[in-house]
Amino acid sequence: MLEKIKETVYRANLELVNQGLVIHTWGNVSGRDEKSGLVVIKPSGVGYSEMKAEDMVVIDIEGKIIEGKFKPSTDSPTHLLLYKKWPSIGGIVHTHSTYATSWAQAGRNIPAFGTTHADHYYGEVPCTRKLTDQEIKFDYEVNTGKVIVERLVHTDPLAVPSALVNCHGPFCWGLDPGEAVYNAVALEEIARMAFYTVLLNHDKPISKKLLDKHFLRKHGKNAYYGQGEK
Amino acid sequence: MLEKIKETVYRANLELVNQGLVIHTWGNVSGRDEKSGLVVIKPSGVGYSEMKAEDMVVIDIEGKIIEGKFKPSTDSPTHLLLYKKWPSIGGIVHTHSTYATSWAQAGRNIPAFGTTHADHYYGEVPCTRKLTDQEIKFDYEVNTGKVIVERLVHTDPLAVPSALVNCHGPFCWGLDPGEAVYNAVALEEIARMAFYTVLLNHDKPISKKLLDKHFLRKHGKNAYYGQGEK
Amino acid sequence: MLEKIKETVYRANLELVNQGLVIHTWGNVSGRDEKSGLVVIKPSGVGYSEMKAEDMVVIDIEGKIIEGKFKPSTDSPTHLLLYKKWPSIGGIVHTHSTYATSWAQAGRNIPAFGTTHADHYYGEVPCTRKLTDQEIKFDYEVNTGKVIVERLVHTDPLAVPSALVNCHGPFCWGLDPGEAVYNAVALEEIARMAFYTVLLNHDKPISKKLLDKHFLRKHGKNAYYGQGEK
Amino acid sequence: MLEKIKETVYRANLELVNQGLVIHTWGNVSGRDEKSGLVVIKPSGVGYSEMKAEDMVVIDIEGKIIEGKFKPSTDSPTHLLLYKKWPSIGGIVHTHSTYATSWAQAGRNIPAFGTTHADHYYGEVPCTRKLTDQEIKFDYEVNTGKVIVERLVHTDPLAVPSALVNCHGPFCWGLDPGEAVYNAVALEEIARMAFYTVLLNHDKPISKKLLDKHFLRKHGKNAYYGQGEK
Repeated sequence: MLEKIKETVYRANLELVNQGLVIHTWGNVSGRDEKSGLVVIKPSGVGYSEMKAEDMVVIDIEGKIIEGKFKPSTDSPTHLLLYKKWPSIGGIVHTHSTYATSWAQAGRNIPAFGTTHADHYYGEVPCTRKLTDQEIKFDYEVNTGKVIVERLVHTDPLAVPSALVNCHGPFCWGLDPGEAVYNAVALEEIARMAFYTVLLNHDKPISKKLLDKHFLRKHGKNAYYGQGEK
Repeated sequence: MLEKIKETVYRANLELVNQGLVIHTWGNVSGRDEKSGLVVIKPSGVGYSEMKAEDMVVIDIEGKIIEGKFKPSTDSPTHLLLYKKWPSIGGIVHTHSTYATSWAQAGRNIPAFGTTHADHYYGEVPCTRKLTDQEIKFDYEVNTGKVIVERLVHTDPLAVPSALVNCHGPFCWGLDPGEAVYNAVALEEIARMAFYTVLLNHDKPISKKLLDKHFLRKHGKNAYYGQGEK
Repeated sequence: MLEKIKETVYRANLELVNQGLVIHTWGNVSGRDEKSGLVVIKPSGVGYSEMKAEDMVVIDIEGKIIEGKFKPSTDSPTHLLLYKKWPSIGGIVHTHSTYATSWAQAGRNIPAFGTTHADHYYGEVPCTRKLTDQEIKFDYEVNTGKVIVERLVHTDPLAVPSALVNCHGPFCWGLDPGEAVYNAVALEEIARMAFYTVLLNHDKPISKKLLDKHFLRKHGKNAYYGQGEK
Repeated sequence: MLEKIKETVYRANLELVNQGLVIHTWGNVSGRDEKSGLVVIKPSGVGYSEMKAEDMVVIDIEGKIIEGKFKPSTDSPTHLLLYKKWPSIGGIVHTHSTYATSWAQAGRNIPAFGTTHADHYYGEVPCTRKLTDQEIKFDYEVNTGKVIVERLVHTDPLAVPSALVNCHGPFCWGLDPGEAVYNAVALEEIARMAFYTVLLNHDKPISKKLLDKHFLRKHGKNAYYGQGEK
C-alpha cells in the first residue's frame, strides 16, 4: 500500500545523504498520505545504502504499524505529534546536520541576518526550551514534538518550516517530503552563514521591512518570485 | 534569437552550481549582447537541473520581455541598472555564496589582506549601505542596483568587479558572463580567506605598494602576468 | 593466514580515506582474530592506493611478525597495549582527522554538548594527559597506549569507544575494525559540531538525564533504537 | 627535451587542482633536472584544463627560456632563487591554498601544535618578514625568494620544507616535484588544524622532546617509520 509515498519517502531519505546532511543513520524522513492520514516513515537504524523503498514503514497517527517488516524510526512519536497538531503539513525531516545542530547545541535561535534567511523563514529559526527531567524520562519522543509546537504556537508552521530542538538538532517540514528536504537543505546553509556572521561580530537581525519584502516576494498571494504556478 | 548568448548564460548558470556557489535557485547570471544591447537572463525560480539553454529570457534594457516563455529573474531590474550605468560590462552574476554572503550579512567591506585579493580587486571589496525603508518598499530591485553604483561611484567597475549588498549578498560582473562567473569564484575564495585572517586576529590591509604591484602585474598596459594576449 | 581479517582490515583502511579522515598515510586500522589472538595491521608508511589486502601484516600480541613482507605500522605497540588491556575490543583505528586532532592539540576533552554525542559516547570524549619526557624517550608508542588506558581506567571502553591523545590525535575502537571505523567517522563529526558549539559561546554539557536517555535508548539491554537484532 | 620532467611537472600541477589547493591559475610547480641544472615550470596564466605536458617551459637558472612556446610562470624568479641557494632541492610548489594563505595574510608562523606537524616539519612553519617598498618595486619576484631564504638561513630546507610569504601565501619544496606537492598537501591540512587549535584558545607548541621524537622517527638515519627503503 501507499507505494508512491514509500518511493517518495525513500528517495527523500537518500537525498539527505546526497546533500551531506546525514551520515550513518542520523536522520529520517516521513510523509503523510492526505487521503488516509497514514504516515510513511524510515525504519529505525537501517543503513541508507541497504534500505529499499519497500522497507519504509506505514503507521497510523497513533503509531500503530499498519504495514512493514521493520520497526519505524525511534523518532516516529515526534513526527506524529507534529502531524496531529499541524494539519497543513505533509512531510517531516529530522537530521543532525552540522551547523543547524551546532546552533541547537548552543541553545540559540538563528536570527534572520540576511535576505537568504528571509526568503525562506518569516523570522528567526526558533530553538525550543530544554525538556525537563520528567519530559525526558517519560514519553521523551512525544515531548520532543510538544516543545516544538509550544515554541511555534503563535506561528504558521509553513511560514517558519523548521525548529531546533535544544541540545539535539533540527526538525524541518513542508507540504510534502520533498519540500521538507528542500527546507532542511536551506536551513543548513542559512545556519552556516549565520554562524560565520556571528563570528564576524555581527548580531543584529535585518529590519522588519526587509524581512517582509523578501519573504512576501516569494510567499503568499502577492508573491512575484518564480513563474506564478506552484 | 541570441542563441549563442543564451547558451553562454545557461552554461554560466550551471557553472555556479558546479563551483559550489549556488544551491536551490539562489543565483542568476545575465549577459548583454553588445550589438543590440539586449540582455539574456535566467528565468525566475526555475531549477538548474530542469533548465535548458532555450529557457533563458531575452529582455530589453527597460525590462520588457522580447523573447521567452518564462518570467525573467526577479533580480532583473538590479542587473539592468548596472548595465545602464556601466557600459563597459557584459555579464553579471548574483549568488548567495557562503562566505561572501556572510560578509554582506555582517555589513563589512572585505579588506585586501593579501596578494590573492590584490590579483583580482584593486582595493577592498565594498559593501553597500543598507537600503532605507522607502527604498525597500518601492522599486526594491532597482534600488539594490543603485546602492551598488553609489558605492562604486569613484571606481572603475572592471577594477573592482564585485560588491556586497548589505544584508543580502554578492553581485559580480565582468566583460562577459564567463568573466563574471570567474570573479564570483575568486570572490568566494577571497572572502573565505579574509574570514580566516580576521579570526587569526589580523585586521590590517596590505600596503598600497603591494596592492599596486599585484593588481598591475595582472591588469592594464604594464601587466606581465599571462601570455600577453587576451 | 587470516585472509578474511586481512581483507576486512584492508577495506577499513581504505574507508578512512573515502570518509575524508585520512590523507597521505596518516592513519591505520588493526583487527584482532578472536580465536588465535593474533592482530592484523596496516604496514608502515605504505600508500593507500598501492596497498593490497595481502600486504596487511600479522603480528602476535607481543609485536612479533607472524606473517607479512612489510614492517607493521609504527603505532603497533599502541594498538597491542589496548588489545591486551581490553579483551572486549576487536578493532582499533588511529587517524589524524581534522577536528578530533584539533581538540587533541588543544589538550581538551570533548564535552557531550548534544544528543548526537550522547547517542555514541556515554560521557565526554576524554583527552589523555601529556606524556612525560621519559615516556616520550623510551617505549613511546607503548606509553601512548598506557595514557589512554589510564585515562579510561574507570570506564567501559565500549561505552566510550574513543580517546584523544594529547598533542597527537584520536584513537577509536570497537568490537571489530568496521565498528572502529564507524566510531572514527562519528567522532570526527561530533568533534566538528562541538567546535562550532564552543565558538557560539556555549560550554555546558547536556544533563545526565538526557545523556542517559540517548545513550541507553541505543545501547544496552533496554535499548529500543534499531531493529532489535545486532 | 626533458620530456620526463615535463610530464612530472605537468602532473604535479594537475594534482594541486585535484587536491583542492588551487583554483583558477593560482598555483605553479617547477622541477629541476639534476644533470643539466635546467628548470621546468608551468607557463604563466594558462588554465589547468587546457594545459598539456609539452606546454611546460624549460628555463636555465638565470631565467632564460631554453625551450617552450609560452612565457614561464611570473613566479619563476622566486623558484630560481630558491634553486640557486638550496642545491639539495629538486621541486618547488607555490599555491594560494586556503588555510596556509590565511596564516600568511595574518603574518603568523604556524607553531608545531601536534605530532602531525612534527611528522613533517622540524619546528614551526616560518612566515617571512614583509618586503620593503623598494623590494616590492624592483625585482619583486627575486626578493620574494630572498626573504624566504633569509628566514630559513639557519635551517636545513628539507627539514622545514615550506615557508609562508607574508601577505601572500605558501611556497613548498622537496627532493622532486612530487615531494613538493606532498608537502603542500600536508601543509594545508596542518595549517587548517593549527587554525582550529588557536580558535580553541590554545597557543603553546609541543615540547622539543615530542618534536624530536616524531620528526626523527620519520626522518634521518635513526628513522624507524615506513619500510626503511626510500
